[in-house]
Amino acid sequence: MSHAHGYAAQSAHSPLAPFSFERRAPGPHDVRIDILYCGVCHSDLHTARDEWHNTRYPSVPGHEIVGRVTAVGSDVRNFKVGDLAGVGCIVDSCRSCPSCQAGEEQYCDAGFTGTYNGPMFGGGENTYGGYSDHVVVDEKYVLRVSHDTDNPGSSPEQTLAAVAPLLCAGITVYSPMAHWKVGPGQSVGVVGLGGLGHMAVKIAKAMGAHVVLFTTSESKREDGKRLGADEVVISKDAKQMEAQGSKLDFIINTVAASHNLDPFLNALKRDGAMVLVGAPEHPHPTPTVFNLIMRRRTIAGSLIGGIAQTQEMLDFCAKHGIVADIEMIAPAQINQAYERMLKGDVKYRFVMDLAKLDKAA
Amino acid sequence: MSHAHGYAAQSAHSPLAPFSFERRAPGPHDVRIDILYCGVCHSDLHTARDEWHNTRYPSVPGHEIVGRVTAVGSDVRNFKVGDLAGVGCIVDSCRSCPSCQAGEEQYCDAGFTGTYNGPMFGGGENTYGGYSDHVVVDEKYVLRVSHDTDNPGSSPEQTLAAVAPLLCAGITVYSPMAHWKVGPGQSVGVVGLGGLGHMAVKIAKAMGAHVVLFTTSESKREDGKRLGADEVVISKDAKQMEAQGSKLDFIINTVAASHNLDPFLNALKRDGAMVLVGAPEHPHPTPTVFNLIMRRRTIAGSLIGGIAQTQEMLDFCAKHGIVADIEMIAPAQINQAYERMLKGDVKYRFVMDLAKLDKAA
Repeated sequence: MSHAHGYAAQSAHSPLAPFSFERRAPGPHDVRIDILYCGVCHSDLHTARDEWHNTRYPSVPGHEIVGRVTAVGSDVRNFKVGDLAGVGCIVDSCRSCPSCQAGEEQYCDAGFTGTYNGPMFGGGENTYGGYSDHVVVDEKYVLRVSHDTDNPGSSPEQTLAAVAPLLCAGITVYSPMAHWKVGPGQSVGVVGLGGLGHMAVKIAKAMGAHVVLFTTSESKREDGKRLGADEVVISKDAKQMEAQGSKLDFIINTVAASHNLDPFLNALKRDGAMVLVGAPEHPHPTPTVFNLIMRRRTIAGSLIGGIAQTQEMLDFCAKHGIVADIEMIAPAQINQAYERMLKGDVKYRFVMDLAKLDKAA
Repeated sequence: MSHAHGYAAQSAHSPLAPFSFERRAPGPHDVRIDILYCGVCHSDLHTARDEWHNTRYPSVPGHEIVGRVTAVGSDVRNFKVGDLAGVGCIVDSCRSCPSCQAGEEQYCDAGFTGTYNGPMFGGGENTYGGYSDHVVVDEKYVLRVSHDTDNPGSSPEQTLAAVAPLLCAGITVYSPMAHWKVGPGQSVGVVGLGGLGHMAVKIAKAMGAHVVLFTTSESKREDGKRLGADEVVISKDAKQMEAQGSKLDFIINTVAASHNLDPFLNALKRDGAMVLVGAPEHPHPTPTVFNLIMRRRTIAGSLIGGIAQTQEMLDFCAKHGIVADIEMIAPAQINQAYERMLKGDVKYRFVMDLAKLDKAA
């Protein structure tokens, strides 16, 4: 056992506050990682506040983890002390169902064990996430980080901090784009420019696609272009939307707020797919079946990605020099950061610097 | 020009009645077909009564045509006088858009020309369908019929009449099953046992799938099994629906009436697809995005099929001895047949015997 320090919510209505707890001693297959940086995902906020009605308290959120290996179990083969390592949303799964066998642990029949909040379908122990100083994870669920930290214009620390959001925001958009085979010659729509959307623009562009960003906000046009969008469409403008009619091969829709899907469906070519990666609290208006039928269009959903694909995404991003656009915070600023997230006041991801964790607390 | 006899609606509120009109003389690429049988599709009724608000009168419905070639133009290569021939929903298209070039004329950018009611998006001349004694069609849109009419237990006439519904009901369900690669080792759900559903059961079975029929009606259990279903699930029974959870690779949903899609989505495995082939008059309740996300499930739509695939379907059905279950009517019975269709009182398709057309009218 080792003593861990972090930030936890003790109930749905209490702010996050310093919290100390025990981590297991590394078993034969475990890697102990001292956490350097942890991205702040909207799921963290939903869970801390029990907005999905399944939170186990104390709740230590955080599943966008980058750190350095400080101990390995006797049977660990892929990591050694001193390595950089990443941990995303998944720290265990049943390992035997068809999805686990296929390396799609995110769809584990038994429900994977989340990096925080324990097994997805309840049962078993609670788990504590990356808003903490270290974590112990089976190496099967640990990722290698190979980004070049020797970048002009960015310190090694800044680069590593900006890698952290790839572990959830990055894989959530990379996975469906890889699954639906986004590539050169295709036109790809990205709906929404937030934590997920800004990663989708960067990754779709690096995959070779012509990228069309849909945003409700004229003020995001410049930033969309800077991030790599070839076109920016104001989705509230019916004329601009009509001009995109039947033009896109694929759309990744990152907007979780309830909205009309039809204008986006109509932007798809024959056999085009729109993949939703956000589950709305209030349902979207029902999409018009006619729009699906007339061009054999598809609506689908997608959940993060499996471990192998998360590694593939990290390697892809390392190769293309892709990281998130981030704003660094100290752990003690997490409650303010949540309030700013709710207002959309972040470009485009907060990342917690664990070096600034006050362990006296 | 040739004088044609048929049945037409003159307005949304008048019953179909005898009607005579002119067909064009066959041009160099045209085939003239004397119509033997024409299936009665629900679209015929929607159009005759202007329920889609796009009907051009007089309206001569009918797009499930089987007949015999009686004349061919000078450049016709694939048909000769005396051949059996079929005509489905499409008699022309732009021939140059990406969908037409891909042999997916049903998704023609300009809108294909329907066998009745003219070009899909309006403009051009009205067209008159198969509730008539003959038709003239470009050979590019004419199908070969190769069913063995020498069947014990069925007269050649009965077999040909039962082929007619393949031209719309058959291709509408065959096309998505072929596109999504239904085959041996898969479990396939069919929602609804009507004109489309009964064809879907037969075709899915012939494709080698394990077939699960979903029906609201216990009374259809026996018939579902007779048609080839391996399992019959009463979809109103929540327990029976839950027992199908995550079991199916593919679902073809033939029910156009508004209904809750979620219990069917939940029956899909990871990466499973539900294809809707009916457009509801009143929207379905909005499907739960969470059910899509948690197993990367897909909802799609599909519209009939292209000419090449319609030929593939006819050849497949000929090889497997598949025809529709039909009830033959005389043209003069069409209005009663519509009333019975509205009550679901047909197993499973009416087919008009054009030999019984009263040409004195």
